[in-house]
Amino acid sequence: MILHIKNGVNRERIEAISKELNAFHIHYQGKEVLITASNVKEVPDSVANDVESYWVADSDIQLASKKYQQEKREIQLGNILIGGSTKNTVLIGGPCSVESEEQIRQSSELLKSLKLSVLRGGCYKPRTSPYSFQGMGKDGLKLLAKMREEYGLTVITEARDATHIDDIIEYSDIIQVGAKAMYDQGILRACAKTTKPVLIKRGFGTTLQEFVQASEFVLAGGNPNVVLCERGIRTFETKTRFTLDLCGVAWLQEYTNLPIILDPSHAIGHAYGVLPLARACVAMGVDGLLIEAHPNPKVAKSDASQQLNHQEFVNLKQELETVAKAVGYNLI
Amino acid sequence: MILHIKNGVNRERIEAISKELNAFHIHYQGKEVLITASNVKEVPDSVANDVESYWVADSDIQLASKKYQQEKREIQLGNILIGGSTKNTVLIGGPCSVESEEQIRQSSELLKSLKLSVLRGGCYKPRTSPYSFQGMGKDGLKLLAKMREEYGLTVITEARDATHIDDIIEYSDIIQVGAKAMYDQGILRACAKTTKPVLIKRGFGTTLQEFVQASEFVLAGGNPNVVLCERGIRTFETKTRFTLDLCGVAWLQEYTNLPIILDPSHAIGHAYGVLPLARACVAMGVDGLLIEAHPNPKVAKSDASQQLNHQEFVNLKQELETVAKAVGYNLI
Amino acid sequence: MILHIKNGVNRERIEAISKELNAFHIHYQGKEVLITASNVKEVPDSVANDVESYWVADSDIQLASKKYQQEKREIQLGNILIGGSTKNTVLIGGPCSVESEEQIRQSSELLKSLKLSVLRGGCYKPRTSPYSFQGMGKDGLKLLAKMREEYGLTVITEARDATHIDDIIEYSDIIQVGAKAMYDQGILRACAKTTKPVLIKRGFGTTLQEFVQASEFVLAGGNPNVVLCERGIRTFETKTRFTLDLCGVAWLQEYTNLPIILDPSHAIGHAYGVLPLARACVAMGVDGLLIEAHPNPKVAKSDASQQLNHQEFVNLKQELETVAKAVGYNLI
Amino acid sequence: MILHIKNGVNRERIEAISKELNAFHIHYQGKEVLITASNVKEVPDSVANDVESYWVADSDIQLASKKYQQEKREIQLGNILIGGSTKNTVLIGGPCSVESEEQIRQSSELLKSLKLSVLRGGCYKPRTSPYSFQGMGKDGLKLLAKMREEYGLTVITEARDATHIDDIIEYSDIIQVGAKAMYDQGILRACAKTTKPVLIKRGFGTTLQEFVQASEFVLAGGNPNVVLCERGIRTFETKTRFTLDLCGVAWLQEYTNLPIILDPSHAIGHAYGVLPLARACVAMGVDGLLIEAHPNPKVAKSDASQQLNHQEFVNLKQELETVAKAVGYNLI
Repeated sequence: MILHIKNGVNRERIEAISKELNAFHIHYQGKEVLITASNVKEVPDSVANDVESYWVADSDIQLASKKYQQEKREIQLGNILIGGSTKNTVLIGGPCSVESEEQIRQSSELLKSLKLSVLRGGCYKPRTSPYSFQGMGKDGLKLLAKMREEYGLTVITEARDATHIDDIIEYSDIIQVGAKAMYDQGILRACAKTTKPVLIKRGFGTTLQEFVQASEFVLAGGNPNVVLCERGIRTFETKTRFTLDLCGVAWLQEYTNLPIILDPSHAIGHAYGVLPLARACVAMGVDGLLIEAHPNPKVAKSDASQQLNHQEFVNLKQELETVAKAVGYNLI
Repeated sequence: MILHIKNGVNRERIEAISKELNAFHIHYQGKEVLITASNVKEVPDSVANDVESYWVADSDIQLASKKYQQEKREIQLGNILIGGSTKNTVLIGGPCSVESEEQIRQSSELLKSLKLSVLRGGCYKPRTSPYSFQGMGKDGLKLLAKMREEYGLTVITEARDATHIDDIIEYSDIIQVGAKAMYDQGILRACAKTTKPVLIKRGFGTTLQEFVQASEFVLAGGNPNVVLCERGIRTFETKTRFTLDLCGVAWLQEYTNLPIILDPSHAIGHAYGVLPLARACVAMGVDGLLIEAHPNPKVAKSDASQQLNHQEFVNLKQELETVAKAVGYNLI
Repeated sequence: MILHIKNGVNRERIEAISKELNAFHIHYQGKEVLITASNVKEVPDSVANDVESYWVADSDIQLASKKYQQEKREIQLGNILIGGSTKNTVLIGGPCSVESEEQIRQSSELLKSLKLSVLRGGCYKPRTSPYSFQGMGKDGLKLLAKMREEYGLTVITEARDATHIDDIIEYSDIIQVGAKAMYDQGILRACAKTTKPVLIKRGFGTTLQEFVQASEFVLAGGNPNVVLCERGIRTFETKTRFTLDLCGVAWLQEYTNLPIILDPSHAIGHAYGVLPLARACVAMGVDGLLIEAHPNPKVAKSDASQQLNHQEFVNLKQELETVAKAVGYNLI
Repeated sequence: MILHIKNGVNRERIEAISKELNAFHIHYQGKEVLITASNVKEVPDSVANDVESYWVADSDIQLASKKYQQEKREIQLGNILIGGSTKNTVLIGGPCSVESEEQIRQSSELLKSLKLSVLRGGCYKPRTSPYSFQGMGKDGLKLLAKMREEYGLTVITEARDATHIDDIIEYSDIIQVGAKAMYDQGILRACAKTTKPVLIKRGFGTTLQEFVQASEFVLAGGNPNVVLCERGIRTFETKTRFTLDLCGVAWLQEYTNLPIILDPSHAIGHAYGVLPLARACVAMGVDGLLIEAHPNPKVAKSDASQQLNHQEFVNLKQELETVAKAVGYNLI
């Protein structure tokens, strides 16, 4: 249950109620808001006088639910806005991993030349084997910061585990919680304490219910700026790396108030399919795309098969602009 | 291995080779063509003189493979063409089940008013319970035939099992092999003996490899007119009925020469998501869509939750035309 | 809803009620029984006087449900019984496919020497490719019949589609409905009209709900002798061919009254794992096992990797007897 | 590739080789061992003189592979041994969550009375919702330590994320890496630096390949004491909570040298199925079971539906002893 507390109830009283109901307490859109477990279905008599209004939830999808807030959340990503009533679809590009200054600079120049503003690049790679490339770590973060400074780009990079989440929060403009880390409460609870936007990727074995509940850790902890990212689930089909769940995206659009960004590169895992899939994603009317592109995919240290080269990325942008327009969106 | 026999080799000799190699024998594009198992990797010396050219296959995806034939097959559906170089996307509409003359007549008039030409409607429903509505059977087929006659429509309906496949082939213009029937060799072998177009739906537990191999039963049996239909696979996600596999569609487009029609209605199972998903499908550049629409979905005898009403279908057609245009296709 | 009609109500009246309620009508354990759709929750006033007792069902799992009949069904397989209170676990052996008289005779002698009585062997193979071995067809059925005559064995073989179901019913003692055919109403409805036992395999993409509902086609059609067979479902894991669902088996044991036979050979798809898995199956307290064994697995025309050789089968039988005993069952 | 360095090569030289080959360096069974990525297929000339023997790996499953070490690893869990040639199956019991001193004391007395030695109990619960019970945290760890002291039990508890892994390592005798945390390199790398046994649960969306590779993080980091735990994967079937993958267990037994413990409680998620499944697990010949039991499951703060009550646990132990004996194992 979500409770909006009456104006004028003092902080001490709010804290007392919060303790009594074992509730989270946040400030949201000028209101003092308490969130209890969803099995609380009635306002207890003891607090009824303090409550201005309340929402009974079907499940632990509460703050993220359209039932609570019908309008899609508007989120600032550097200089641009997505969600709300913006009808913007942000095209985020860059390599799977930051590998060198030369490489990430080429990516930055590509984005700049296309008037795009958000650069992706992994520094802590959540590899499933200890014997493969693990990312540049903090050196990579510093390169991303350098690109931000030099090119005015907004930077997004991924936290692999809680041991370096503070660095990610410090160096990155948008915090990416990866598919393998999205149950990680060490990360989620840290993200709740900043106001930087947080992009949560769906785990490949994660239900939509659990996916949105992961956002509740951040929202109920005090950070309203969450974006969801569908990147493919694991199914019996192995010709493609994962299966992009656009049915799930339709469900998220119908039932949640969170902006949605899609990652077709990881979903299919092969460059040949990124363009048609990206067109499909844009046609859904989504808030953004994450596309992996590398100056020279053949020598990439991770995800070589799925990264576009820069010419392919230029073409992709052009095609996506047309599709976005056809569904009333702007590709930015 | 696929072998093209030299012109001038006589029928007797071809039959002898076919027997020797345990091969299928078809006439295709003016050629005598033999198809052996794919583990045959070399032309046997005994037949080398009779062979004009040959293709070694990686797997039992042979006739359907782009390696064998790069150009997408062109298929005639009544008055229209899809595939080949047509850039047509056919919008097939109609109810889940034929329920009455009045109902199917309303569907026919809807299509007519939108200048659409292909009507769907099930008569033998592959229900998973014996206690639910099983379809009108042959009476339904006759209603479809009546609609064809009165409205000039092309009709597609589904074979549930081999006991009524002859009726389906007789009454229907396009034969639909349903998701639960696509391993049914009684159906597939019967479809191979007609030249009417055959739309094969992917089973919800079927790999892409098996899916395309099902088409090989029809193609190698002598009917070149096969269309594939992706309609959602079964995954762990249950908020939606199935998971539409657009990664798989990208793979099919890359590796096979068969036209592809998508069925977003069955995939998501809820009317709210049909429109955004249909836009996504069209943006992939596919050859057609199957969309369930019912004059009054609330009283539908099957699939009530996922059928659009007629106003929604009109809106859908309009939006899809714009998306189709944006990717260089015509919605027909 | 299941209705038991009072003794003395005449056949005409029963048929009238059956028509009124759109119900199936069977004779079962000395009773006239009607089965309606499960959404019928109250006995209509018009028939209340004719009804002795009734069961309201949660879902279309009705006749198969423990709620309707608590005791497990007892089924006769040739000379032996399974289910009921027998505590018998039948070990069914034989090759994947009948390949020759010599081969199937060796299998028969193996069973005889081990005092086992049920022989398996496929004649119509539901292969996913037209280019691989498709089975011996009717010639295979005749070989199985010959083995029955000569060795006194009970024979089980599989229907691939409805075109040859009559032959299967004629030649086989136990009718196997394969995993790819279990939605095939042509087969299921034919099985309902015999009283020979029917073993239904779970489709690899089939939910437990649908699996048991398939049995309702046979049970409600008048054949009470159904056995369920779990043989592995398709999951994201590909190191093994399928994933044997023993959680599902526990559910079937808890909620249905049908005997259960397990097929670990198809589940894992590799001979090395058949023995430990078979031990696990027997320890569940199940009614039988299907194990593929071949005189010379290396040259088998289908499923070469998963068939045991005869020495391995002998060892398996010995180990399983010990496990069966430990859980209070007899391996027969 | 795994390289055994010759006796007598000095530490400096080993470190130099390790750096040159970008290899891990461990001491294992009296040897200096280097492990490179598995795509290294030949010993470089520059180090050939320092190498006593080497193993080429097919994949990044290296130290855990039977190809490298045929014998199953022997692991000490408190006073008992599993793996190696012990033929012991350890029965680990206790509640899902530590909830109070009274509750965990009752669990401890249950184990003591059954002469069992390993107590489980979660303190940091990886719940998918922020609004449900999150565990007692460090207070729970202290209760577990108290039970160890008073009852002489060996204690296993789970790390949820890297923020409290140091506490887990300090307070627990066996470190459990949960299904949602098994990609967490913050946890895995910390586990590599202790020699306490580490039990890694398979993620419900995790392939066997990735599962075993997770163990390589610990093994290659210097801790040889890893046990794998299968606890059910996520499939399309929802009647049960997860699907226990015993085919996968057969594969692990065939290809890896790690002891295996199974968790049927989480797999099925319902108490009714725990006993038959546990019998199946023991019949596979595994090294242990994790079974959830609670003094009063109805009031449990987590996993109420799947925990056995204490009488059920006593019965379970008795039945499992018989099955273990039948397959040549001792339940301890």
